[in-house]
Amino acid sequence: MVDCHLPAMKDFVIIGNKAVTGGKISLNDLPGSAGRMDVLCRCVTASLFISFGMRRDVNVYLILKGEPGPEKIVRFCGATMKSLNPDERSSGSMIQKALLVDAKETETQSTPGVFVRTGNLSGLLEEFKNKCRKLVYLKEDGKDILDADFKAIEDPVFILGDNQGVFEEDEALIRDAGAVSVSVGPISLLSSQCITIILNQMDRNEMQNLPAEE
Amino acid sequence: MVDCHLPAMKDFVIIGNKAVTGGKISLNDLPGSAGRMDVLCRCVTASLFISFGMRRDVNVYLILKGEPGPEKIVRFCGATMKSLNPDERSSGSMIQKALLVDAKETETQSTPGVFVRTGNLSGLLEEFKNKCRKLVYLKEDGKDILDADFKAIEDPVFILGDNQGVFEEDEALIRDAGAVSVSVGPISLLSSQCITIILNQMDRNEMQNLPAEE
Repeated sequence: MVDCHLPAMKDFVIIGNKAVTGGKISLNDLPGSAGRMDVLCRCVTASLFISFGMRRDVNVYLILKGEPGPEKIVRFCGATMKSLNPDERSSGSMIQKALLVDAKETETQSTPGVFVRTGNLSGLLEEFKNKCRKLVYLKEDGKDILDADFKAIEDPVFILGDNQGVFEEDEALIRDAGAVSVSVGPISLLSSQCITIILNQMDRNEMQNLPAEE
Repeated sequence: MVDCHLPAMKDFVIIGNKAVTGGKISLNDLPGSAGRMDVLCRCVTASLFISFGMRRDVNVYLILKGEPGPEKIVRFCGATMKSLNPDERSSGSMIQKALLVDAKETETQSTPGVFVRTGNLSGLLEEFKNKCRKLVYLKEDGKDILDADFKAIEDPVFILGDNQGVFEEDEALIRDAGAVSVSVGPISLLSSQCITIILNQMDRNEMQNLPAEE
């Protein structure tokens, strides 16, 4: 079923190529035994936090592709999020709790504003397409986000890799789903830094589009 | 002595209003008992890391103003940094080691690329002035970094507050030192996010200023 009348959102999908999918992860070793979960934690902070509050119009989908499987999707929902702090350990703790849930194909809320299910990139892209969402792939050779074309994109879903990038198989899925490629400048940056720059640019675009005061 | 002929650098000064100045800090509680040291750790990552390497032309000065005193300055030097990873625990661990050093008025290297000394904002600003460095104060009501004036600033030193901002006394020091105020957009962001946006803008400026290929 296609539903094209949802409230405006900004969604981020981050592919965690080695991010573990089960067991009790150690908050003292997010980069190591948890499969570079620190990268995903920084992406959560970059997506949801501003100086004195939270971006309530943002969802973050973490795709965990690591051992032992099956793949899982952990969603941080800005609209209903509670008790999240910007430090890596805080989001790491929520991922830890999500991984202790017996995940099904439909979402289970593990802590307020955090949801977990089994699922993969292919299925998630299909869902976004069914909701008429515009897919935007973060890629070094993409068009600069400062370009006019980007400013016209409403309700975007941004798809990023982790420290390993996006492997060919996933890249093919993203391209087949019709994603446009964009870049954030002349230097390849951390995934979380890319998110910060994208949101800053969207803030600026939205400010320009506000109606003038009477 | 005034020395105006140093190699081009970008420096960041972050004021840690409650960041502890002694004792063995707990890497499991950087936000709490260490006095929001997590904010400073994220600033280190934002300043020094790019996707596959480190910004060698950046120094990060963390001004620790918390208990028990006296105030200390921990410097992360991009040019000589070793063994630093982008996760908060990694920079936190280096700050932890720096705080175990018996700090003097001159720098002591605590781990490769990390230096500690006693000192405060006032003295540091004086040092930068003596080196003819341009001081730039990150402030919501400052001029937008996209403006032409900002692009002309060479060898800038950016000064930022932590989650508590910059208190009046420090703000007076910064203004008296002749800093220009700049902002990074319409929304007040985390200190680390401000650093990411500044560096992205500087990357873009530098790319524009490169000589055209023959």
